Parts: sequence; C-alpha cells; structure tokens
Amino acid sequence: MLFSCTQNKPETTVSESVSKDFTQYVNPFIGTSKMGHVFPGATAPFGMVQLSPQTNFVEMYNEDGKYNPEAYEYCAGYQHRDSTIIGFSHTNFSGTGHSDLGDFLVMPTTGELVLQPLKTEDGKKGFYSTFSHDKESASPGYYAVDLDSYGIKAEMTATERVGFHQYTFPKSDDAHIILDMVYNVYYHDNKNVWTFIRVENDSLVTGYRQTKGWARTRYEYFAMQFSKPFRSYGHKKYDKILYNGFYRRFNEFENFPEMAGKNIRAFFNFDTNEGEKIKVKMALSAVSTEGALKNLEAEIPEWDFEKVKTETKQKWNNKLAKIEVETINKGDMISFYTAMYHACLSPIIYEDVDGQYRGLDQNIHTSDGFTNYTVFSLWDTYRALHPLFNVIRPSQNNDMIKSMLAHYQQSVHHMLPIWSHYANENWCMIGYHSVSVIADAMAKNVGDFDKELALQAAVSTANVRYFEGIGDYIDYKYVPDDKSHSSVSKTLEYAYDDWCISQIAKQTGNSSLEREYLERAEYYKNVYDPKIGYMRPKLSDGTFRKNYDPLDTYGQGFIEGNAWNYGLYVPQEIDTMINMMGGKERFTEHLDSLFTMYLDDKYIENNEDITRDGMIGNYVHGNEPGHHIPYLYNWTSHPEKTQSRVRMILETMYRPTVEGLCGNDDAGQMSAWYIFSSLGFYPVTPGSQYYALGSPNVKEAVIHFENGKSLKIVAKNQSRENIYVKSVSFNGEMLKGTNLNHNKLISGGEMVFEMSNFPNMK
Amino acid sequence: MLFSCTQNKPETTVSESVSKDFTQYVNPFIGTSKMGHVFPGATAPFGMVQLSPQTNFVEMYNEDGKYNPEAYEYCAGYQHRDSTIIGFSHTNFSGTGHSDLGDFLVMPTTGELVLQPLKTEDGKKGFYSTFSHDKESASPGYYAVDLDSYGIKAEMTATERVGFHQYTFPKSDDAHIILDMVYNVYYHDNKNVWTFIRVENDSLVTGYRQTKGWARTRYEYFAMQFSKPFRSYGHKKYDKILYNGFYRRFNEFENFPEMAGKNIRAFFNFDTNEGEKIKVKMALSAVSTEGALKNLEAEIPEWDFEKVKTETKQKWNNKLAKIEVETINKGDMISFYTAMYHACLSPIIYEDVDGQYRGLDQNIHTSDGFTNYTVFSLWDTYRALHPLFNVIRPSQNNDMIKSMLAHYQQSVHHMLPIWSHYANENWCMIGYHSVSVIADAMAKNVGDFDKELALQAAVSTANVRYFEGIGDYIDYKYVPDDKSHSSVSKTLEYAYDDWCISQIAKQTGNSSLEREYLERAEYYKNVYDPKIGYMRPKLSDGTFRKNYDPLDTYGQGFIEGNAWNYGLYVPQEIDTMINMMGGKERFTEHLDSLFTMYLDDKYIENNEDITRDGMIGNYVHGNEPGHHIPYLYNWTSHPEKTQSRVRMILETMYRPTVEGLCGNDDAGQMSAWYIFSSLGFYPVTPGSQYYALGSPNVKEAVIHFENGKSLKIVAKNQSRENIYVKSVSFNGEMLKGTNLNHNKLISGGEMVFEMSNFPNMK
Repeated sequence: MLFSCTQNKPETTVSESVSKDFTQYVNPFIGTSKMGHVFPGATAPFGMVQLSPQTNFVEMYNEDGKYNPEAYEYCAGYQHRDSTIIGFSHTNFSGTGHSDLGDFLVMPTTGELVLQPLKTEDGKKGFYSTFSHDKESASPGYYAVDLDSYGIKAEMTATERVGFHQYTFPKSDDAHIILDMVYNVYYHDNKNVWTFIRVENDSLVTGYRQTKGWARTRYEYFAMQFSKPFRSYGHKKYDKILYNGFYRRFNEFENFPEMAGKNIRAFFNFDTNEGEKIKVKMALSAVSTEGALKNLEAEIPEWDFEKVKTETKQKWNNKLAKIEVETINKGDMISFYTAMYHACLSPIIYEDVDGQYRGLDQNIHTSDGFTNYTVFSLWDTYRALHPLFNVIRPSQNNDMIKSMLAHYQQSVHHMLPIWSHYANENWCMIGYHSVSVIADAMAKNVGDFDKELALQAAVSTANVRYFEGIGDYIDYKYVPDDKSHSSVSKTLEYAYDDWCISQIAKQTGNSSLEREYLERAEYYKNVYDPKIGYMRPKLSDGTFRKNYDPLDTYGQGFIEGNAWNYGLYVPQEIDTMINMMGGKERFTEHLDSLFTMYLDDKYIENNEDITRDGMIGNYVHGNEPGHHIPYLYNWTSHPEKTQSRVRMILETMYRPTVEGLCGNDDAGQMSAWYIFSSLGFYPVTPGSQYYALGSPNVKEAVIHFENGKSLKIVAKNQSRENIYVKSVSFNGEMLKGTNLNHNKLISGGEMVFEMSNFPNMK
Repeated sequence: MLFSCTQNKPETTVSESVSKDFTQYVNPFIGTSKMGHVFPGATAPFGMVQLSPQTNFVEMYNEDGKYNPEAYEYCAGYQHRDSTIIGFSHTNFSGTGHSDLGDFLVMPTTGELVLQPLKTEDGKKGFYSTFSHDKESASPGYYAVDLDSYGIKAEMTATERVGFHQYTFPKSDDAHIILDMVYNVYYHDNKNVWTFIRVENDSLVTGYRQTKGWARTRYEYFAMQFSKPFRSYGHKKYDKILYNGFYRRFNEFENFPEMAGKNIRAFFNFDTNEGEKIKVKMALSAVSTEGALKNLEAEIPEWDFEKVKTETKQKWNNKLAKIEVETINKGDMISFYTAMYHACLSPIIYEDVDGQYRGLDQNIHTSDGFTNYTVFSLWDTYRALHPLFNVIRPSQNNDMIKSMLAHYQQSVHHMLPIWSHYANENWCMIGYHSVSVIADAMAKNVGDFDKELALQAAVSTANVRYFEGIGDYIDYKYVPDDKSHSSVSKTLEYAYDDWCISQIAKQTGNSSLEREYLERAEYYKNVYDPKIGYMRPKLSDGTFRKNYDPLDTYGQGFIEGNAWNYGLYVPQEIDTMINMMGGKERFTEHLDSLFTMYLDDKYIENNEDITRDGMIGNYVHGNEPGHHIPYLYNWTSHPEKTQSRVRMILETMYRPTVEGLCGNDDAGQMSAWYIFSSLGFYPVTPGSQYYALGSPNVKEAVIHFENGKSLKIVAKNQSRENIYVKSVSFNGEMLKGTNLNHNKLISGGEMVFEMSNFPNMK
C-alpha cells in the first residue's frame, strides 16, 4: 500500500496484526508540513542519495539582505502546503534545524524550453509544475507524482548512491530534462562556488558542484545516465566566466560538451511518444566523477526500475523489522514505523563503493575496516538516536564512531565532530557530544573501534580553548556569561560531556583522566544559584547575572531552551542535581509546574525551534534539551508521572499526519525518542548502561539484536487508558526500581509490563 | 659566477673556452625587459615550481572594464624596469603570449603588519619592497635579492616540485611572512574561485587555490613548511563567506587554524635576531595537500639550502651539457646557454612524486610508464622546441607525447591539446599542432608511445567540427572567411597539420587515411589567389574577399602575421608553393622584399606580439608564423641568403641583455630557433626527417645524443664576417644540397662547415 496524502488520516480504532511488510506502515509524508523538516522522497536506508521533490525556490535572504524566516520551513526542500514542484534533488537533510544541500535538481518538462524555476525574466511561468496530493504517493524507497503542467508522471527510487528517475512523457517533439545546478536548499545568490559539466556522450553526463553554504567547502560529483539518447542539449550560464581568455571560439551554449561556471542550468532535449518512459540514473560521489561512475555501475547497472524499487523496499523491510510491534491501533503502527524510517535517514553513508571518501582535510581517504558516514547532528542525536543504534544497529554505530575518529584525525582543530556534514564541520550548536556517543558505545560494549584513540580524541576535543568558551570553562570552572553566549547551556553540556570522557577514561583504565574529568563533570554546580533555585548565568567576577528571566529562551545564558527546561540538564548526576535544587518534593513541583504552566507568547515569538505545537505547558518536546525531562520523575517519588507524561507525549506530540511531528525531527532524534518511549524505556544518561523505564504504548514488541537474541516486550492490559505500569518482569523476575540495564536488555527473553489505569505508587 | 643585472652588457670580444660549468653562461635576466615574458626566478629544469619575484600587481582590466594593455608585459610577473617586488610566487609561465598562474605569493616583511601589496586602504605603503638590480642576482636554480624596505635578504632555490626560500632577517620583534592567496598573474577581481588554508601545526601550513582564469577550472595545492615555529598567525578575508551558518563562534582571523574563502591573505609572525635565517619550503601538487606533503618529504626532507641549490645547479648542468659549444665571443655563449635554459622551462612536469596528476576530466590519474607534463603552447613550440627535444631529449619528448595522448583520452571533445595547461584546455591560437609533434617524433623514430592511439587521436582531433571552423574547412576545403576569423591562417595550418596526420597514417601503415589527409594537406591551394600572388581570404560563395590588404595583420584572414609572412606557411609542400607563387625567382624577390621593405607604423600599432624590436623589414622574428621563412631561400637558387639572414637574426634578434629577446620567448620556441640556427640547421618541416642547413654561429659544438653517440660540429674559419657556408662535410663526406637527415645527424661523428665571407653560389 502506498500512502497518498489524502489517506493519511489517523485511524484510531483499527488494530492490525503485524505483517512482515513493515513498509506499509511507513508514511513518508508525516512531518512534511510545518516544522518537521523531513522529506517524502525516495531513499535507501542511510543512503547518500536522498532524492526528493523540491516545492519552492526560497531565497535565504530577502532583497534587503535580511534572513528570510520562510526559508527555515524548507530545510528539506518540501512543504506539504505547496502546490508546485520545481524539480527533484538528490541530497536533502532529514529533519535538521538548519540546512544545505539540494544538489542536482532534475526537472522534466515539455513545450517551450524554460530555464528559470519560478518565473522567466519576462514574467512568464517558470519550469515548475503544479501537482496535487491526490496524484502523489510515497513509500520507503519510492516516490511518485503527476506533474500536471506537463502531463508527465514522475517516479523515483534509489539505491545508497544512485537516484533512479522514471518519467512517463506525453507525445512531444519538445520534451526536456533540465539539470539545474543553480538550485540550493537555503539558496542564496553566492552559495555556488563552481559547477562543471561534461557531456561524455549522447546519454551520459558527468560533473560536480562546489558550494560554500553551511558546509563551507563542499563538493558533490555526479554521473547522470539517460535511458534514451538526447537529441540535442545546451546550457545557460547565469554569470560571466571567461572560458578561453579573451574571446570565445565556439558557441559553448549549444551542443558543446564542456560547461563550467558558477551558476549553470543545462537542458537535454528529446522527442517522446505518448506514454514513453525516459529513465535517468544519477549517481553521486564526494570524491570524483570517476567515483560516481563506479557507483553507478556497481549499484544500478541495468534499466529495470521495478527491480531497484523492489530491492530497496526489501532493504527497508530489513531495517524496519529489527523491531516488530503490535499496537493499539493502526495510527500507532504508522507512527512507530515512520519513526523507525526517520531514524534511518541520518547519518548517511559517505563513501564510494570502493571505500574512497573526501575527508575533513579535503584529501581523499579510503575507509579501512569501516563504512564512512556523514551528517552528524550530534547535539540532537547523541540523546537517543545513537543509543537506539546501540540497541538495534550496533555494528553501524561502530562504523559511525570510526567515522568520527577519522574526522578527528583529519581535523586541524584536533576535534571530534560537533555538527559535521559532507567533509565539513559546520560547528552548529554547543557541546562536544561525540564523546557521549563514544562513551555510550563503550558502556554498552559496542564496537571494535580504537578505545585509546577515542580517549585521546575526546580529551583533545575537550581542550580546544578557542572553541565556544572552552578555555574560559577550564579556567573559571564554568563558562562566564560575559565572555560567551549561552554560558549556562554550555557549562551544563560540557560538564555532562566531561562525565562521558571520565567514563571513556575509566573503560580504558586511565584513572587519572577519569578523576580529572569527573571533577570537570561537576562544574554544573557552579552555575546553580541556590538563592533563586535555578541554573543562572554567572559572570567572570563570580557574581550571578542580574536582570535574569528563567522563562526566556534567548539572551539568558541558554540556547534553544529556557532555564526551566535546559536548567535540568545534569543527566550524569540526577540525584545530586535534585538534592541541590531542594530535594525530591521541590523538584517534583518544578516538573509539575513545567508541564502545566502557561508560557506567555512573548517567550516563544520569533523562535524557530520552539513552537506551541511542540509544547506541553512550558515543557518543550519539539526541541531536544528537554527530551530527558519526562523521565526525571523516576528520580523523585513519582515515577507514575513519568509514565503518564510519556504516554501523553507519545499521543499528542506524534501523530500519523503530515503535521505529525511537533518540531524538527532532527536527523532522527525526535523519532528515536518515540521508538524508545513506545517500547517502555529511554536512555536518560547516554554513556551509562541504564535506561529509565517509562510506559510503553505498544501491545507487544520483539526487538531483534545483532547478537542473535531477541527480546519480546509484552504490555499486558494495554489500552489508551491503561497508561500506568503496575509492574515489570524480566524473564519472569520482577524488576525493582525504574532502571533497566543494557546487558540485561540484549540478553533477550521476555519483558512484561503490567499496565493499569491507576498508578502504582510503590 | 652569478649574473647581476648590471653585469649583463654584451661582451663582444672575449672568447672563452667551454668549461664544464655551463650554468655560468646562463643569464636568467635576458628577456625580462619588455616583451620577452620570461622570469628570472629559481627553478629546476622542467620543474613545476617556478619560483620568481613579482614586481607589480597589475589589474587585467581597468576600472572602466577595458583590458589593460600593460598587463601583457607581466605575463611572467616580472618587468626589469620595476624597482619594487611584491613577493615571490611559485608558478609562472616562461615566455608565453597570454598568462595565468602566480600561485602562492610569499613575502617577508618587518614592522607593522600590512596586508595589501601596493597601498593600504588608508593610502599607506603596501607590503611591497623596493629593490635595486645591484643587489639582485640569478643563476639556474637560484635567485637572490635584497628587499631594501625591510633589510631582508631573500634567496630562493627549487627542486621540481618544491620551492625553497631563505630569508635573512634583521633583528625584529615584528617580523612577518605573508602568504597572499589573492595575487594572480593577470589578476582580475573574480579570478579566485576558492582558497583554503590549514595551519597543521606551528610550522606547517597546507592549502589550495582554485582559479577561473585562462585555465577555467584550475586547482593548485600546497604544503608550506617553516624552519622556525611562528609566534602567531592569522588572516584577512577580502570577501564575505559565512563559515558556520548564522553566526561566528570564534575569532577566525587570529590563530584559528582553518581559513577558507575566495580571497585570503594569511600572515605568520616571528621574532628574529640580527641575521637570523628563516627558511620556507613550499611544495606544490595539482592533486591534493597530501600530494604536496609527499612531494615535500621526497624532494627536500632537510633544511640544507646550499645542498638543494647545488643539486639543482647540477641538474641544470646536465641539461645544458647536452650541447657543448664554443663561440666567437662570450656574448654568444651567454645567448646560447640562456636559450638552452629557456628551452627547459616548458612543458613542465605535472605530477606528484608518486605519479598522480589531475587530468583534463578533473579526475586524478596516475601516469603509467611516463612522466606527465603540462603547459603545451603548441602553436609556438611544435615548430622548433619539440624538434629540438627530438635531438637532445627524445625520451622526455616521448613522455610529453604520452601526456598529450592522456589528454586526448581525458578530453570530452576527443581532442589532443591545442594550448593546454594545468588540466585545462585554454584553446589559445589555431591549428591542432599536437599532430605535428607526434608526426615529427614518428618520422624521427622517437619514443615508444602507442602509434595506433596517436593516429586515432590525430584523426579525431582533425574532425571536431565545432572547433575553429573545422566543419567548414572539411565541407568547403578551406575555411570561408565569412564564417570564421583568421580564415587563411587556419586553412594553412590545418593543411600542414593534415599533412602531419598523413605521415602518422603512413608510419602506421594506414594508406587510406594517408591518402585522405594528403588530400586535405593540399587545401592551402584553395586560399591562394593567383591574380594577386598572395594567399587571400575566400568567402563561402567561392569568391575572394574584396578590400584586402596583405600587409595588415588583423582582420585580413590572418592572425599574428600578415599575408606577406603567414602567407608563406606551406612547410609540407614548399616547392609546390613556390611554383604556385610564380616560381623561384619571383619567390626570391618576395623574400627579399619581405626582409627589406618598410612596414608603416599603422600596421603594427596596438599589436602586442609584433613589435619593431622583433622585425627586419616586414619580416617578423618576434612571433612564430615566420620562423621558417629565413630558411626558405634554400628552396630557391639562393641558399646563401638563408645563411646571411640567419646570421643577421642570430646577431640582432637575440642579445645577451635584459632586452635580449625580440618578442615572447613563447615557452622556449624563440630560444629553440636560436639553438638550432646557431648549430647550422633548422627543422623547417616538422614531421619530416629533414633539417634545412643554415649558417652556424658557433665555432665548435658537440651534441650528445641519448643513443650514446655524439656529433661534433666544426665551423672552420668562423667569424662575425664569415657568415657564408662554402661547404658542409659529414664524417668527411661532402653534403649535397641544403638538407640534413635526422638519422644521419644522430648517427654522430663530425660535421664540418667551411665558413667564408663570400657566398657559395653552387
């Protein structure tokens, strides 16, 4: 069954048994409206080709030079409310909080050739097409839409490194396939650095693009093969680049096989019969056009669209089947497997079939004993996505850690990734959370990466003094607010990260480093003001900052979260934090207020990442700093409040509709929260072996581990009302407390939650 | 002995015996004034590092957008009349007629840091230094100058891939070494595409630059090592390139090890003691910074400046010693060996020590069984430079041909090089003269390149219809003047090139292609107008063009040569041409007039490549199309006029002074003419086995061939007055006629010219 958007209404009463085709429960349109920042296009799991429709051409900056806030909605190129498509591009982020990419926009058209996407210079219609969601469908590895303006049916599928287009044309003696090298997600005029196209023969084109966007020095190469020779071709250049010194010796714009410049749109002309299919294979490489050709030949040597579509669907099923769930209703099935789907879209594979990849140093490296990955949105994904990988895909997480260590070795800053993509560090957000990913893997005995190197990399990263106030953090034992923005958030995150480093040191038997970083792990205490009972920005003179509003998100020492939310970020020492903040009862009251208070509009105006859609009271689920908070009741006397809040969040913050994500999916973090919480546990402290128990919303689940074992989770008496956990047993033995150990988890067997509509107050 | 410029006066009376240190006779300053376009800097033979002072920062276009004719004088970055140096750059063309390059300008300074070369924004002096020729010296592989503005002595030497600087500083607590990534030879504002710098540690910097100049898509990578750690560093960016999305999180301009953008100038700060030497090694690579580091480590692992200087001098001596001459005076020795030197500056090696190089397709290739070369100024160099290589360096010429064939295989146009440099085709000038280089090698049994591939490449190149009117040339059997500029020049050159292809076909036993191209080789006849006795532009309707002035160089169907000169370009069928033009007597009269007539100023105004300095009457020696002309008397009844004209040209068009080159050296072509003619013979028809005999100006010479044999040339009774050749004997046997066969030449022995002050009219 394919989802078309009109079918996406939640079905709240139907319960279905789990079939083996899990892709039927994936709806790629979920979250494509508003701020989910996901895309509906075709991709293989963790594929470096993510081929998706682009519905608008939005300038990042308005004509007055100011940032255009509308651009933010287009982080993944697609907004569900749009009724136009300007083409299909091969790279897109999934759910991120900033953007880039959009490489190699391809658009089929008929009739007079138009090379502007929205509007021609003389005001006529651009090459976009209108479309309707009735004639649009998507499923894992497949996307289709009717391009109404041209009578063309567009279908696409993909392997890891190759996008496969199939265009069914009407009869036309003036059909075109446009290759737009100008288009960028987050377009702005100067983003392209260079583009280069070679028409190798009448059906093969190669080239590359260099951009200076979020990734400052990014290269993407391609090889593009057509199933039918083009009749003629050409390009238009939107800048003045001299080719041959003083004067041009040929008409380089028509049927001239070498094109280069900053901004180019190429076109390929065809005659088509009614219903004729023209297929296009577009292989990518970060290395070279030669690499793209290798990828093309290795992954899609033939022209069998259905075969590739079927094989990619099977790849998805294999990924989705790692957790088999049965839910109360079909809507939850869709939410769960769409979350599983979204948790397989980053990080992405970033190497050619022969293992060659572009490194952070812009040299070409070969992955030795691992698959190289990129797109590390770590401030988001260290929380639950990488821990999820440690449960169901530890060998992939091992490769991701090896990719991070390679990044470290290539980094002139001698740093692990902060937020890295496509051989670049974009430095987005704070902390150095690679160390959390590493510590979590080590705590859970995941992977065979070099532990000594990991420790060295972690320590090196935590001592780069010019990065985000680290020097001051080391000197003052907190980040002084007068020296650095987001001083409290930084202090809290660094302290947590330092605890992770202490755990890495412990695992490698380095007790002096363990002690050193355990000490740094307590620096969070230095930004707590006992007088007001909140974390509070402290100045370099040791006094706390005046004029402080703990409800405000910006300019108050925090970033993307106010003191009420972000101020609870001490996952490494939750008990200590609670004591520090006045003890369990006072802390419970703080949490209760957090979830129930009304936050004035003024606190969320002009705030891209924190919107009412993603809030419960003052608690923000639509952004990451609070993702652990619902579970903190477990450390008070009221774990039942964790259970009820978790179930409330599962039900209200995730819905199987196009508006179903309450905030950016953030490269899978939001989805990973859903998956864990649906199963009844959550990694509150990555880097430890422990999960906090919550309240599952599945009726049953089977998790298949890579060690060959499986864990069956049964939620007895599960229902919409029975949100409380009466007891939990593991292989028949009652679990005490609210923690679950990873080693126990992956030893497999059966875990039974007894559900109830009354809290168990023990 | 080092040349300093004040010592460069010709010494007309001194005769010296040839010593084994031939470098003493090389004066790199010859031709550095006016239009020689050569540079005085330090380089190894055929080195890809050509490290030379840049004396000005000239904009290619004036503020009104018009081409700045002064820029042309700076093709090699240096003009002898200047009294300033703005730095030392590592890539320069030698003698070319257009330019590019100038990569990685390095300049040492002291005092307040200034990062603009000529003038600061507030009108103060830029970072240039004044210098005087008294304190400047150059010899093969070595250049030194006192930078008077700073009290710094700058010295440099080079290996093939690494430039080695040695700066002797005064005492200073504010010394700097500037790395200017903005500077380009033929600078214009938009030439830089991207620059990238990494400070790997306190004494190692890597990076690259991409430019879109004459080479449209050019990359150059570097690794730069300092002998002393810098105290601090930083950069200034002359454009606005966002690094990390919305806002900057560090001060990226000071001590921040990663710099990127379009236009960057970096600086490295030092404290220096009086007389302290700071050395800098700058390795280049067209592949990657990793490649540059490999080159650095392989070629100059240590810090011994004198050792490298001595070794490079020895490399030069080995190259120069291929021909040992004894001349009438020292001035001629200097002219000869400086010509030998200039004939070893292009093509240049273009691969890393491991054989990796960037191909025309922008992919990285590895040379298999050859050394890859670039800088093929073929319209110039096919005439005498490559034939010279076939005499003294056939194995290198073999590698150059293999490089051309690799270019062909990487060319999306399926063409051999026209004028190619640095993995780009710049399409400069007309004809497809790679085929001449190949044919000449095959005629002379040079090399083991793939002959079938060479034939295929030649035929493919000669049939690219969109290149410079080739389609019309094939259809009309001449290039119609109403369809293409330079129609007559093109027709003549294509016909000659086609003859070369016929010779390649003949050598490979392909008689049908031989016939086909012999037919095309006669198309020159189609642009001869017997009514006026000149080659003349013909229109597509078959009529000759009206309003035709055979004295004019431009807009008359010719390029860089008028009909009087260029119209004699039928080297493949000289006898037929002479008959066509009215027979030997009439042709002799034409030549006589050519050398003696006065050409009105209006014909050479605004003409960069044809100046009075390079002219004898209407004969132009300062540019290539006429280089064979002095030898054409050999095909008339007056070979003695060849002898006298050749001696006149040797004496007047080449002088051992800074103004000693009468036109662009053109990558060694002008110098190769000198070398051949000095020895008494010249390759009038490359692609044949024959040389035309002239009149040597050496007293004795020994040519050492790669086959182990040597030829001693003796000019008996040689003097300034005895310019006529009475007889020539080869190993005791009198030579009949005016030709010399290559096979005879390289069989070695002794060739004796009997010189006389009266012509031998037999």
